[in-house]
Amino acid sequence: NFVATGSYSDKIVAPYSVYKGKAALSVSPILPTFTKLDSGAIKVDRRGVMLLKFFPAVGERKYDWEKRQLFALSATEVGSMISLGPKDSCEFFHDPSMQSSNAGQVRKSLSIKPHADGTGYFVSLSVVNNILKTNDRVTVPVTSAEFAVMRTAFSFALPHIMGWDRYTNQLPASIVENRSKVVPQLLDSEWDK
Amino acid sequence: NFVATGSYSDKIVAPYSVYKGKAALSVSPILPTFTKLDSGAIKVDRRGVMLLKFFPAVGERKYDWEKRQLFALSATEVGSMISLGPKDSCEFFHDPSMQSSNAGQVRKSLSIKPHADGTGYFVSLSVVNNILKTNDRVTVPVTSAEFAVMRTAFSFALPHIMGWDRYTNQLPASIVENRSKVVPQLLDSEWDK
Amino acid sequence: NFVATGSYSDKIVAPYSVYKGKAALSVSPILPTFTKLDSGAIKVDRRGVMLLKFFPAVGERKYDWEKRQLFALSATEVGSMISLGPKDSCEFFHDPSMQSSNAGQVRKSLSIKPHADGTGYFVSLSVVNNILKTNDRVTVPVTSAEFAVMRTAFSFALPHIMGWDRYTNQLPASIVENRSKVVPQLLDSEWDK
Amino acid sequence: NFVATGSYSDKIVAPYSVYKGKAALSVSPILPTFTKLDSGAIKVDRRGVMLLKFFPAVGERKYDWEKRQLFALSATEVGSMISLGPKDSCEFFHDPSMQSSNAGQVRKSLSIKPHADGTGYFVSLSVVNNILKTNDRVTVPVTSAEFAVMRTAFSFALPHIMGWDRYTNQLPASIVENRSKVVPQLLDSEWDK
Repeated sequence: NFVATGSYSDKIVAPYSVYKGKAALSVSPILPTFTKLDSGAIKVDRRGVMLLKFFPAVGERKYDWEKRQLFALSATEVGSMISLGPKDSCEFFHDPSMQSSNAGQVRKSLSIKPHADGTGYFVSLSVVNNILKTNDRVTVPVTSAEFAVMRTAFSFALPHIMGWDRYTNQLPASIVENRSKVVPQLLDSEWDK
Repeated sequence: NFVATGSYSDKIVAPYSVYKGKAALSVSPILPTFTKLDSGAIKVDRRGVMLLKFFPAVGERKYDWEKRQLFALSATEVGSMISLGPKDSCEFFHDPSMQSSNAGQVRKSLSIKPHADGTGYFVSLSVVNNILKTNDRVTVPVTSAEFAVMRTAFSFALPHIMGWDRYTNQLPASIVENRSKVVPQLLDSEWDK
Repeated sequence: NFVATGSYSDKIVAPYSVYKGKAALSVSPILPTFTKLDSGAIKVDRRGVMLLKFFPAVGERKYDWEKRQLFALSATEVGSMISLGPKDSCEFFHDPSMQSSNAGQVRKSLSIKPHADGTGYFVSLSVVNNILKTNDRVTVPVTSAEFAVMRTAFSFALPHIMGWDRYTNQLPASIVENRSKVVPQLLDSEWDK
Repeated sequence: NFVATGSYSDKIVAPYSVYKGKAALSVSPILPTFTKLDSGAIKVDRRGVMLLKFFPAVGERKYDWEKRQLFALSATEVGSMISLGPKDSCEFFHDPSMQSSNAGQVRKSLSIKPHADGTGYFVSLSVVNNILKTNDRVTVPVTSAEFAVMRTAFSFALPHIMGWDRYTNQLPASIVENRSKVVPQLLDSEWDK
């Protein structure tokens, strides 16, 4: 099982974080992984996501790393978020144990609701864990300016978490010309049938 | 006939797919191919497209690969799609046999029509094949969030299917400096006549 | 006078062209050129532009290359064009002989005016040449879809014709680490005085 | 303390500048710096900013470099600026000596206010320096077209000053395959707890 990471570094730490009174929210993209097929094609293996991390506050400007809660937005959920109007809201439901024996035991929901005065959104994560008998809810108010950063950064990252940058990255022509074998992109066109 | 693929891999498989009850829709960009002219210039040979593939459902979450229908959007058709307002619709007509002896025998039309409540679009492909005496129509409902992914990913891909990334990709300066011959970009300016 | 072209190829030919009954319009970006200062800094020398070429029709789908007229949009003029609303218009005036002895002898103006029904724009170039005693005007109707392609492609290209991609292009970390001298970006910060 | 600059050149000089009667405004991005952690991860060290430089006019088309005033926009302030509607205004307050013994002695505020007729903005920087007993204010009128350039260029640069391009830059697959050790991106997923 071949994995082409595409990443030139083991791990990048550059989240966009907003620190508020009761909790902090930190977001960063996770790229997809790829598998090389026998045909030589490179196929997305594990899809990329936009990872949201919530940290409850435990003091002034202190947040509890241990109690962090995660929510990973799919490409379509990112699409929902970046197209949100100033008075729109949205909600996503995840079951992190889906397709395992614990299916249905943990329910996560992320909701994004506009401030009444249109100056931003409340981003809330609710986690109901029937195994641990816990019910956590954390809310981070996000200003319009902070949401604009997320919208722009998510729009930038979206093609990358979809793996579409792989379609477009290019080698300098001088390098292409020096390769012993130059293979035209296998074309699966409208005209193939 | 020199072909500079620009692609560093033979084939990338990373479509954006939406799976619905009656059919699935899968989209991915196809880069242009280039020809090297005697002057040394690199010219777009075959234009890039945004390829839409429709698959009819043949059971729950099962789709018939054999019966897929393709529609390749040109740059201008992509422009039409990404500028579509929530109540706008558009329709494109293609003849895959254009300029061959079978011209007019197969007619394809892609239509995008808004949901009555503004929550998304119906994307329909109709294929009338007078040779095979077939008349197929497949429709995939696309939510606003899914359409936002397409709009963002299509906007990202558009300059690449136009070949405009070739104008902008840059070698690191240190590599440029080491090249024996550094040729300024041939300038075809407003002042040349 | 050192010129770092940044371009990995002598010349790319990938214009976006619209062919209409009376004339054709073809657009493509021209990157800036750079000069290396004694300090080692790389400075924009000649600014990049978005080059518009107009060709009058001389028959069905035939256009006269010899009679082409050029107009080079600056970054700010591109900004004007990409922010044009569906009912907005704009006009730019250029003197290609500015700061020469022929100043004022040739006047070019580019106007973009909306169709009455909001389905696109008329893009017109007028060239009054007092030396050659000529007065040419060429108009190309551009649909909303074609204008959307231009807006997206111009937005993509704008940072490149400004030279801002130079601020952001990155070497893979592994290569950076292997360089004998790693120089932090010279920081001219808010705190420097 | 390892610094991976990411920049392939010591210093790029390609600001976007608007020159007006009483002052000039010049903007350019400053990339973040990175630190390599013991774990091998690359972490943002000093955050990137969008640097605004104001120069008072001292004659026709002459500006006083010595009297320049700087203001460095954070990612969130850039988010505020790029989401500004045609009738919106915003204001930011900075203390360049924050967390030093001179805290509170210098107060800078940047305000962006719309023209009454919606054709642009007034961008003003006020600097009150209690140490030098100075109180400077400089205002540059910015047209809609110039602001559109800033909005597009700032949107382009924002992911880079956040360091998010580090998540997405990719090595060509052929190079990845040749590396002796291919490490999958360390995945900190929603499912990790």
